[in-house]
Amino acid sequence: MKALAPGSVIGILGGGQLGRMLALEAARLGFDVHIFCPEPDSPAGRVSARQVMADYDNLEALTVFARDCDVVTYEFENVPVMAVEAVIDAGTHVRPGAKSLQVSQDRLTEKTFLNEIGIPTVAFRALETGDHLPEALNELGGAGILKTRRAGYDGKGQILLRDPDPDTSARAKALASEVPCILEAFAPFEREISAVVTRSEAGTVAFEPSENDHDNGILRCSSVPANTTDEVRSVAIDAGTRLAEALDHIGVLALEFFVMPGGDLLANELAPRVHNSGHWTPDACDTGQFEQHIRAVAGWPLGPVTRRFDVVMENILGPEIEAVPNAYNGADRLVSYGKRGAPDRRKVAHVTKRITLVR
Amino acid sequence: MKALAPGSVIGILGGGQLGRMLALEAARLGFDVHIFCPEPDSPAGRVSARQVMADYDNLEALTVFARDCDVVTYEFENVPVMAVEAVIDAGTHVRPGAKSLQVSQDRLTEKTFLNEIGIPTVAFRALETGDHLPEALNELGGAGILKTRRAGYDGKGQILLRDPDPDTSARAKALASEVPCILEAFAPFEREISAVVTRSEAGTVAFEPSENDHDNGILRCSSVPANTTDEVRSVAIDAGTRLAEALDHIGVLALEFFVMPGGDLLANELAPRVHNSGHWTPDACDTGQFEQHIRAVAGWPLGPVTRRFDVVMENILGPEIEAVPNAYNGADRLVSYGKRGAPDRRKVAHVTKRITLVR
Repeated sequence: MKALAPGSVIGILGGGQLGRMLALEAARLGFDVHIFCPEPDSPAGRVSARQVMADYDNLEALTVFARDCDVVTYEFENVPVMAVEAVIDAGTHVRPGAKSLQVSQDRLTEKTFLNEIGIPTVAFRALETGDHLPEALNELGGAGILKTRRAGYDGKGQILLRDPDPDTSARAKALASEVPCILEAFAPFEREISAVVTRSEAGTVAFEPSENDHDNGILRCSSVPANTTDEVRSVAIDAGTRLAEALDHIGVLALEFFVMPGGDLLANELAPRVHNSGHWTPDACDTGQFEQHIRAVAGWPLGPVTRRFDVVMENILGPEIEAVPNAYNGADRLVSYGKRGAPDRRKVAHVTKRITLVR
Repeated sequence: MKALAPGSVIGILGGGQLGRMLALEAARLGFDVHIFCPEPDSPAGRVSARQVMADYDNLEALTVFARDCDVVTYEFENVPVMAVEAVIDAGTHVRPGAKSLQVSQDRLTEKTFLNEIGIPTVAFRALETGDHLPEALNELGGAGILKTRRAGYDGKGQILLRDPDPDTSARAKALASEVPCILEAFAPFEREISAVVTRSEAGTVAFEPSENDHDNGILRCSSVPANTTDEVRSVAIDAGTRLAEALDHIGVLALEFFVMPGGDLLANELAPRVHNSGHWTPDACDTGQFEQHIRAVAGWPLGPVTRRFDVVMENILGPEIEAVPNAYNGADRLVSYGKRGAPDRRKVAHVTKRITLVR
């Protein structure tokens, strides 16, 4: 694909905060942004030149949208593959393509794919029905996390199975009978890190891995540099790069890892998009993840990602937003997501804090 | 005024590139932006939640706009004072207020006001008609620049009167007879600098003055630090601060100066808004001018403006934009204005370059 001229239209499937941050950077680079999103008044739509409100199975709306865009991308992995295929059928490039979506939408496909390209994960078992749960649990040493294969985020659709508890077992069995599930072994990890890489037709550029602290399945904080060895960081970047290549991915991709006590890495989850654990990059690096993604998607050369200072990114959840006007000044870079209301435990903003080490 | 909560609506009178850059930063801080602009498809409108296309004398449209906004600001000084008064009459705060507009819209009022508060300017003469031109020219030593009192920008509406030339004299006389003009003495300056300051109800915070290179009345380049003494910088900042206070200005304000051979400063032009010579600040400072302006207007605390590195900001004019996709990478921060077409000699983007000194 030729490099898009400033003024070209970049379409985004999805209207959430990641779409909003992509749209803001696309505008800074001179593009018009067009949002396709089922919800009215979306965070991304409110900063974009155009928006259409339609469901992801509305082929007619997708076709019109595709024709109005010079290239299309997506901001989250739960966009139906069918929607991406409809845009491609209408003659518009979608970057990244359908493969990254297909692989990442299903935890079973995802882990299988990672293992196939030589990236280790925790052990796992697919569950056809809830009846298979006891046997699978037994195979994984008696404990694990039951997850729906599709459509989970921020810890939703997950049940922790550690200590025997009849009520939890019953809930787990019911869930596994209701929807396809996967049982994942526990990883007694020391810490979690993630690799965020950007792939363009010319190659892959990786940000430094961040160390991520979760609370109840929700990312609270990412710190850079991660408290690991250079070797661990390098293994993480290599895996992210290999994955981007194997998926023929164009754009940003994140791969989350457990760092095990011996320093081994187990890949946990793939996100075929800009990622919460890369939110520190626009402030701390020459080129941030949103600009990199737009550059890749637009066929522009990727930028350098040299980090300028140590940094901590903290997510702001729900009502915590109320303290924002006075809690942060310009030295802590605030990014607010424009969500209506302030739903409990949902990410509504983040702040990047520069760490100056006094030695 | 109470600090606005994230999600509040900030209205902007004007839809050009300054409005666009303000809108992008306002969105990052969590505000919705509403643009009032006479032109369709404006650069600012294309990144804002709402926009209304109406003329600045449309009182009904202004009243509706005012009621839809929690606070209103303006992005350029040629918004009619009447429009600002209509918003205020509808019960919505306008920041900065009408006074900053009134003073800056007329070169005669502006220079008179500056002198009254002790800020020196070049000598000048008001011209009632073109017939007064020879006498005024004589009083200023036989040379000067004839400028329309209102509505000039980027060197438009100016005639240089230095060497006797019948054709130029006739054009100047005709202009001065047609519209109110001012004749300004020549300033044989060494360089030009500007002070960009932000005033909130709590006080004033000043960016470091930049050194500005113009070509044919158009700013080509701003560099920081300016090649002047600390004392010159401090005089510039003091003048900008005094001006903001005298105008009871809330928001960003720029004051351009000639630096004379002895180090004296003559104020040249006031802009009651974010300014081209402050475009280096979002990349190089903790808090950039657009965020500062939104903070002031929203009643949020101003941020610190510590500069992190030496910097050069270059404007990109007209067709120069075509080279952009490959000419700049993420290390040079590109900001494109989303203007349709690429009109010759009009600013369409700028790029901020970090200067690393090798010592």
